[in-house]
Order: sequence, then structure tokens, then C-alpha cells
Amino acid sequence: MSDLQSYLQSCTEKIEETLDELLPSKELYPQSIHSLMRYSMFAGGKRIRPALLITAHESCGGDCFARNALYTGAAIEMLHTFSLIHDDLPCMDDDDFRRGKPTAHKAYSESLAVLGGDALCIFAYEVLSRTDNMAVVAEVSRCLGTAGMIGGQVVDIESEGKGVTLSTVEYIHKNKTAALIRCSLVCGALLAGASKKEVDLLGEYGESLGVAFQVIDDILDCTSSTDVLGKNVGSDLEKGKATWPALTSLEESRRYAHELTAQAKECAAQFGAAGERLIEVAHYLEERIH
Amino acid sequence: MSDLQSYLQSCTEKIEETLDELLPSKELYPQSIHSLMRYSMFAGGKRIRPALLITAHESCGGDCFARNALYTGAAIEMLHTFSLIHDDLPCMDDDDFRRGKPTAHKAYSESLAVLGGDALCIFAYEVLSRTDNMAVVAEVSRCLGTAGMIGGQVVDIESEGKGVTLSTVEYIHKNKTAALIRCSLVCGALLAGASKKEVDLLGEYGESLGVAFQVIDDILDCTSSTDVLGKNVGSDLEKGKATWPALTSLEESRRYAHELTAQAKECAAQFGAAGERLIEVAHYLEERIH
Repeated sequence: MSDLQSYLQSCTEKIEETLDELLPSKELYPQSIHSLMRYSMFAGGKRIRPALLITAHESCGGDCFARNALYTGAAIEMLHTFSLIHDDLPCMDDDDFRRGKPTAHKAYSESLAVLGGDALCIFAYEVLSRTDNMAVVAEVSRCLGTAGMIGGQVVDIESEGKGVTLSTVEYIHKNKTAALIRCSLVCGALLAGASKKEVDLLGEYGESLGVAFQVIDDILDCTSSTDVLGKNVGSDLEKGKATWPALTSLEESRRYAHELTAQAKECAAQFGAAGERLIEVAHYLEERIH
Repeated sequence: MSDLQSYLQSCTEKIEETLDELLPSKELYPQSIHSLMRYSMFAGGKRIRPALLITAHESCGGDCFARNALYTGAAIEMLHTFSLIHDDLPCMDDDDFRRGKPTAHKAYSESLAVLGGDALCIFAYEVLSRTDNMAVVAEVSRCLGTAGMIGGQVVDIESEGKGVTLSTVEYIHKNKTAALIRCSLVCGALLAGASKKEVDLLGEYGESLGVAFQVIDDILDCTSSTDVLGKNVGSDLEKGKATWPALTSLEESRRYAHELTAQAKECAAQFGAAGERLIEVAHYLEERIH
């Protein structure tokens, strides 16, 4: 295992521990919703957002695994899961499985999935309030709202099955996916007391990395099921989802992912030695498509 | 119009203005969700929660219509509306109309109603962050979560059509309805820099008033459609909803509402002259059933 991989793994472990410590017990009344919250939170995510937050926090001189970084990372992971639970609902993407496990509304019920998503969103803010950093609460709210993640989900839902332009796809990626990734980096910087210049640079890094992350995911959706380049048989295409490979080509998508990754690396390079891990992360994420 | 009524009306007007000022314009992309947010926010609520917040704020020496009280009142009204939008969804209470107007999922779509509720919840926190009072963010999150409003919604949904005990009905009222009313009073006190004793007293006032508010609502659901006492033909009963009149009697429900109102008044009386308006409000709300 490389140094980076073992670092990312220790981030994941710390976040799992923090989530387990923070989330209400399944035994607590009303049990059903607490059970759903834990089911969805421990359904096997990669915890990439908290790992990016922790990395950004360290790059700006923050202590490794500081309590507030872990709490904010855990809160962002709850917000991510909240969005997935609602995204999977029958009236939305109507997905029965996620990462091989039944989605929340299948494992429990539709009404409990709506309320469970709501509860994770609210609980995330309760956790954020414990960090006593209002700039973080403001940043998360901006990134999550209709000028961010929710806006991206709205346009994504409304674009399904319609012919959309590349600029609409760009809007969806920037908001639905990249906003919360950008947010993770900015929060890491804010919690470390970074300068405005550093916060802006990490925001830029996060946005480039976040869009790259989605383009790479879309490429994998096309290629991983068949392992044959150029054969587009992914589930996104079936659903008429607006993706970069669907509108351009796999080759052009790879070129674009590479360009975005290079942009992210350039931002990280301005932190000198402190930015090295961020460069490695960007490199590591892009490698998945090669 | 009585002094109290004209005071409550000026509270309502100020909150309408504040909401209009804060909410994103309908012209802002993506328009559909901003349109839904405004549609649901201006569908004709009484704004009782913000009015209680403003009254509590003044009772603790805060300036009348101070910006932070208005912002927090507006945020709490957004959170209330978020809960109504999700509560009306087909998988929840499945209501097509609210206050004579089509519910959000009927006027727009189910997917947009889910996202619109989410967006109002997140936007409420964005507004709260502008008051720079973390105690308020923490209090709202606690009152709203699974140990408060969401917990009450879960038990309400799970109790529908089942034989429930009076203590379950009490739990639902205390959490689904009273938690956010209690929260409004506590936030008003916190924003005015009240002492712990004052905050606790207003919390107690809010909880008694909040449960009374729901019992009164349930009584009206039984009586207002027929105007004949003792004839239970309300929509709550049809749905098998757990209510106080369904489990006891209209007479016993009225006695209980009176007892709770008296408890609330006792808390307010401890503020001397500053608590008079809170006493009048409690009296005014109870009068609806006489």
C-alpha cells in the first residue's frame, strides 16, 4: 500500500469512528429512524469528502485529525448521504440498490426514507454547531442550497431524457457533485484558520477536482461494466442522464478529466510542500480511468 | 381590533416583508425550485411561530422587530413549511390541498416538492448563520431533529390507523408540534441575551402552549366542520390520526387545553409586566375553542 493509500485509509477509519460516536444509538426511541440513519451512513461509502477536508486542514497547518475537522467531515458525509437517500426515492432516480445494498426506502419505507434524509441533514447542522465556527455553517449552507447541490439535483432531474447542452451538464456537475467537494476543502481551510488566499485556492482546487470526479465517474459508468473502451452500456445512458461521455466521447471526456486534474494540481502546487498530498490525491483519483 | 390583534398583525407583516426580502427571486436559475419555495412560503400561514419569537424577544428586553429576531423568525417559518411540504407528500399524509391551495407536489411535482422542502431547510440555516448566534443554530437543530419535530413525525406516521395510547399522542404533540413552538420562544430569549432562568421559563411556556395549540387544533378538526359539540367527523379521525379528542372526549380535551394554557400563563406571569403579552397570546389561542 502506498503512503497515500494508508493515509486515506486512516482518514476513513477516523471518520467511521467519529460517525459511530456521533450518531444516535439504534436503541433510542423512535428506533426506526435511528436504525435507518445508521443503515444509510454505514452502507459503504469511500468517505472521500471528509478525507479531502482533513487533507486541506493539514495543508493549511491544522492538526491532523483535530476534533473540529473530524466533526465537520462527519457532518459533510451526513449531508452527502442525505442527498443520496432523497436522490434514490421513487419520485427521483428510483434506485432500488446502491453499492449492492437495498436503498433506504427499500430497506425501510418511502416515508421513513424522506424523514431519514431530513434527519441526517438536521443532525449534520447539530454537529456543525458543536464546532462553534459560523463561517463553516454559512459555507455549508451556501454549497448545499439552490445555488449549489440542490440546484444541481433540480437541473439533473429536469434534464433527464431531454437533449441537453454541454453547458447544462457542466452546471449539473459543478453543483450536484463539485459543490460539496469544494465545500469540504474550503471548510478544512476555514477550520485551520487559513488566509483568504488559501481558502480561495483550495476552493478552486475543490471545484476542478469535483467536476473531474464526476466526469471520471461517468467514464467508469460507460467502461467498467463491459471493460471494453468505447462501448457505452452504462446505467446513466439507459436513464438518459446528462453526462460528459454521452455528449462528447470517451476520449474527449478523458482529455477533459486530465485537464481539470491538472488545474487542481496547479492550485495545490502553490502550497509548496504542504500541498503535495493534495496533488497526490488528484493524481490518484484520475488514475482510476487509466 | 384589540391591541393584541394589531400587534400580531404587525408581526405578520414584518415577517412577510422579511421572507420576501430573504427568499431567492423566482427569476433566479433554476427557476422551478425558487418558484416552489415562494409558492409554499406564501400559501397563507398565520406566522404564529415568528410572532411568538418576536414577543419572547421583547419580553426579555430585546428591541421590537430587531433584525436578528426577524431573520430567526423567518428561518423558523421556513423550517415549519419544509416540514409541511414533506408531510403532505403521497408517501406521507398524501394531502392534495392545504389551506385551500394545491400542496407543493400537486402544484409542481413530487420530486420538486422533496427538493423544495430540502432547500427551505438548508436556506433556513443559511439565514440563521447571518445572525451569528451559534446557540440559536444548536437549539433549532435539537428541536428539529429526531429528539424533536422529526421524531414526532416518525411516530405520527407509524401510529396512523393503529390503536395508540395517550402517552404516544402526548409524545407526538410534544415533538411534532410543540418542539418548534418551544424553539421559537427559546430563540427569542437567546437573541435578547436572556438569563438561563428566563430561557428555561420561556421554554416551559412554549412547550405547554405548543401542546395546547395541537389539542385545540384537534378539537377544531372535530367541531368546526359540523359546529355541533360531541360529533367527531373531522379529517383526522377519518385518517385514523392519533389525537386527544379521539382518545378521550371533547370535554376532556377542552379541560386539558385549559390546564396547559394556565401552565403557560403561570410561566409568563413570572416576567411581571414584561410577560403580559405572552399571557394574552395564550388566552387568545385558547379562545378559539370557545
